Amino acid sequence: MYTVYGDIKSGNCYKVYLLMNLLQLEFKWQHVDILKQEASTAQFKAMNANAKVPVLKIHPNQYLSESNAILNFLANGTNWLPQDPFTRAKILEWQFFEQYSHEPYIAVARFINQYLGLPKDREAEYASKQAGGNKALTIMEAHLSKQDYFVNQQYTIADISLFAYTHVAHEGGFNLSQYPAVGAWINRIQSHPFHQPMALKTTHND
Amino acid sequence: MYTVYGDIKSGNCYKVYLLMNLLQLEFKWQHVDILKQEASTAQFKAMNANAKVPVLKIHPNQYLSESNAILNFLANGTNWLPQDPFTRAKILEWQFFEQYSHEPYIAVARFINQYLGLPKDREAEYASKQAGGNKALTIMEAHLSKQDYFVNQQYTIADISLFAYTHVAHEGGFNLSQYPAVGAWINRIQSHPFHQPMALKTTHND
Ligand SMILES: N[C@@H](CCC(=O)N[C@@H](CS)C(=O)NCC(=O)O)C(=O)O
Ligand SMILES: N[C@@H](CCC(=O)N[C@@H](CS)C(=O)NCC(=O)O)C(=O)O
Repeated sequence: MYTVYGDIKSGNCYKVYLLMNLLQLEFKWQHVDILKQEASTAQFKAMNANAKVPVLKIHPNQYLSESNAILNFLANGTNWLPQDPFTRAKILEWQFFEQYSHEPYIAVARFINQYLGLPKDREAEYASKQAGGNKALTIMEAHLSKQDYFVNQQYTIADISLFAYTHVAHEGGFNLSQYPAVGAWINRIQSHPFHQPMALKTTHND
Repeated sequence: MYTVYGDIKSGNCYKVYLLMNLLQLEFKWQHVDILKQEASTAQFKAMNANAKVPVLKIHPNQYLSESNAILNFLANGTNWLPQDPFTRAKILEWQFFEQYSHEPYIAVARFINQYLGLPKDREAEYASKQAGGNKALTIMEAHLSKQDYFVNQQYTIADISLFAYTHVAHEGGFNLSQYPAVGAWINRIQSHPFHQPMALKTTHND
């Protein structure tokens, strides 16, 4: 059985949790408190030298980190990751967009506000994240005005990657009511029968 | 025939150039001058709404952006991207590491120094990039002390993604002599018979 090391309130970790629920996989969730530096211990770094959650334990001594790499691994062979090479490349395009042009703005603004309580010495950084986050949301809005999901008119792991921090973007100061197509897509994701919100369902927990 | 829109001096674009040479693919290189905002025109944004190079034109009206997504697409079915699902996931792990924990430090420091000439008003930002860049190089050094390539003991697109900005990291103020295993790996990459340096070979150009 898989073990996931993570914090369910971190969007990067929640991506893995959401996909595992959609796939109805059995797994153990091992909570890691990043504010208590639990991702920086020698023991943790033996699993991921980069000292970040999430980490997926596949077998003893076989670990995988990077949320979007984990999604590609788990979704392989399922409808959440179609086989066609161009479709897979388009999914990766959106996942790299998420990590480079979305997460560093929206997730970081949310972290400063929600985890740290917007301390004075990070107010300037928080403010500096707003333009980039709104740029990413504007690109998503234009895309979702023309189609229901990011790739191939179907729910894929590209949607999971982008959903994770977008649906809580208001916690980073972003006004989602300005992005109606994004809002409709959020509702679409949330209406999947196996959808799970950003809170641990303890029956899946150890 | 493929067309690549990019600036060969940008590591993200060079990744695509290097792989295409290794694969001995025919392609046309269309230079885009990002300092002249040529990636921000309406015409360019029709190819990539995120206004960034590189972009791969596959067919008229079929475009792919994000350097690492392009590598996965082009390498599919070749030795640079083995079929085994866990191997592919490990390649993605390093590529997402590159985009999240390497490029935003090393490439941005190099850009500020090399493209912009280290202007006074960006000196603080430049200095702030050094710790993160050295952290990424330290993780690479530890990994390459134990193996010749990043994944599976063979040259893959994970190496291409990390090579692009690492081999020019000195242009961002990083001292590569502190990372001997990284240095040996750079030599290994550069000794491939089809290797091409970060300069356009005009016979491949239009
Ligand atoms: N690119 C990584 C980012 C992971 C990441 O930034 N994780 C954060 C929590 S959201 C973390 O572990 N931070 C701890 C630290 O940096 O010390 C991924 O997608 O998995
Ligand atoms: N995540 C993208 C990053 C691409 C990127 O940042 N490209 C830069 C040049 S290295 C660019 O086009 N910048 C123009 C701009 O941002 O205006 C990738 O890997 O392709």
